[in-house]
Amino acid sequence: MDQLPPIEHAPRRAALLAALADVGADLALVLTGVAGVRWATGFTGSNGQLVLAGDRTWLVTDARYEGRAAVECPDLDVVLERDWTAAALRLAVGAGAAALAFEGEHVSHRAGVALADRAAEVVLPTVAVHQLVEPLRVVKDAAELARLELACRVTEDVLDAVCATGLVGRSEREVARLLEDGFRARDAEVAFASIVASGPNGAVPHHEPGQRLLAAGELVTIDCGARVDGYHADTTRTLAVDRLPSDGGLIEVFEHVAAAQDAGVRAAVVGAAAGDVDAACRSALEAVGLGDAFVHGTGHGIGLEIHEEPFVSRGATASLADSTALTVEPGAYLPGRGGVRIEDTVVVTTAGPRRLTSSPHDLRVA
Amino acid sequence: MDQLPPIEHAPRRAALLAALADVGADLALVLTGVAGVRWATGFTGSNGQLVLAGDRTWLVTDARYEGRAAVECPDLDVVLERDWTAAALRLAVGAGAAALAFEGEHVSHRAGVALADRAAEVVLPTVAVHQLVEPLRVVKDAAELARLELACRVTEDVLDAVCATGLVGRSEREVARLLEDGFRARDAEVAFASIVASGPNGAVPHHEPGQRLLAAGELVTIDCGARVDGYHADTTRTLAVDRLPSDGGLIEVFEHVAAAQDAGVRAAVVGAAAGDVDAACRSALEAVGLGDAFVHGTGHGIGLEIHEEPFVSRGATASLADSTALTVEPGAYLPGRGGVRIEDTVVVTTAGPRRLTSSPHDLRVA
Repeated sequence: MDQLPPIEHAPRRAALLAALADVGADLALVLTGVAGVRWATGFTGSNGQLVLAGDRTWLVTDARYEGRAAVECPDLDVVLERDWTAAALRLAVGAGAAALAFEGEHVSHRAGVALADRAAEVVLPTVAVHQLVEPLRVVKDAAELARLELACRVTEDVLDAVCATGLVGRSEREVARLLEDGFRARDAEVAFASIVASGPNGAVPHHEPGQRLLAAGELVTIDCGARVDGYHADTTRTLAVDRLPSDGGLIEVFEHVAAAQDAGVRAAVVGAAAGDVDAACRSALEAVGLGDAFVHGTGHGIGLEIHEEPFVSRGATASLADSTALTVEPGAYLPGRGGVRIEDTVVVTTAGPRRLTSSPHDLRVA
Repeated sequence: MDQLPPIEHAPRRAALLAALADVGADLALVLTGVAGVRWATGFTGSNGQLVLAGDRTWLVTDARYEGRAAVECPDLDVVLERDWTAAALRLAVGAGAAALAFEGEHVSHRAGVALADRAAEVVLPTVAVHQLVEPLRVVKDAAELARLELACRVTEDVLDAVCATGLVGRSEREVARLLEDGFRARDAEVAFASIVASGPNGAVPHHEPGQRLLAAGELVTIDCGARVDGYHADTTRTLAVDRLPSDGGLIEVFEHVAAAQDAGVRAAVVGAAAGDVDAACRSALEAVGLGDAFVHGTGHGIGLEIHEEPFVSRGATASLADSTALTVEPGAYLPGRGGVRIEDTVVVTTAGPRRLTSSPHDLRVA
């Protein structure tokens, strides 16, 4: 694996504190969302909470993760305690906080109610906050972009290698397994369950790979991604198996989707709304009578989560900033005949959109 | 894959309705937990909610899963709607329910509060319920036991096959990959990220497999499992790499953990408390001075989730019923030296405990 630049977590926690100050004065915060905690601390365990109170910062986890927390978060005070609500309340009270903020989206209703009840016992108000850390994670720093870039490169290298072995006669499930084995062989993880949708199955956007064998003269849609150091890649290519499709109309559909995808990528510029990217894809497909065949949103932000802010859907108002990473993935789905989807992971930059997945968009025969 | 007996979902929904009637009369219910929805319906999509109101039953999902819902839930009315709170409220009101119950543990605090607010607009009280479906899932029916049994058999077959190729000189990560590739090659899934902890790493219960090479004369702890049709297996064996360990004291520790594990399994009888199983393991290790080296709970229920009710920990009061599936996995961890853990997936039966993972507990050299 390439040498990746180190990630600086302290500036992220400073940004988080600034966002918290906008919510209210003298608030303590307990961060519980797994991706947010990893972003702010580097901790990769499945049970970890970040408590910020005044100028102090603690990672709450349990004894299983003592060693990992010491290695990954040498700059944090680590509290080993199973019951994070008790720990967060004690730390917030000890720091003289006016109230304790918690992430309403990342605790269960039961846990949030229990936290508020226990906080009332120590006369500490609680505040449910939403979308506190997510907006901060939208803009990627250089260390994150390096990881996204490598994840995308691994993804495309493996996809190329699998295509080079020939697709005809393999089952969908076998192709998915070859891809995922390839990611692991390159020391990456599997970002999400791969989609391999052949022939008529291509009409199902989230088709689960099955025993169907890929046949010459049909299309196959492959949607897959590797994950490197927590960062996800996501790409989709629709390919022709062995030779161009017998159903010539599908070639035309392919060209339309490729043009729509290109229009979407070109719309991903600094200052545009996420919805503009969706509109660019959608209007291109509507103009050729494929509007109804495009049955899902255009894309999503991507980083420590496979799906994160900004969501690229009809009317989405989020303004695209420099160094935002997102996917552009329009498709056309024709029940009984098949489908086409083309997707790239793209970074918005002041110099224009940059595709991190950069393999050509011509209809490849494999 | 063996022919597995079909699962009957309607009796499960009847049991759920009976449990709901115990909470209150004329309640509608929206079930949101993924494992609970799968248990009650067979639906395997990532977005699905079960609404029960009066004698009507609906599965709420989105257009991506239209085909899958039709195949997996032919006996349910399927509602394709992104906003499940709106759908649940409309269906509950339409059925004349007195109130709408929701799972406080399986919706976010934000979603629970939003549901209550929207329910108030249509003058429908909401009730947060906890542990409604989980207790029903503890006792496994014959179809579930067949799946658990097959998952355990695949797990042990693959572990045997990997051991037969020889462990010495392989990296922890390579061993983990061989195991997981083996599960997939047998058409099973990977139940959880495998633990391969060699030499001193054996002292870390949740060690993440790394580049360390397994060396002759040390122990390695391998904790892994396959998943078959949604049902998880979980087993751990500690093995000697290439020859018996140079640190002879570890052989003694191994024997003590094996004896403690055996005592734990023998305590898993109908009518015992889950805590009795923990106490059997713990007191056996305490008696030989290893109490402090056993730093975690003894086990957990297992089924559609890798960790589910009943949790087998100190003082756990849940009474074990016939056909309860659980793990028994005591360990001893010696920082700097290494560790031992032995785990079986076990079913409690009226004829006594039955190990679904049944490979011998002698210290195997591999």
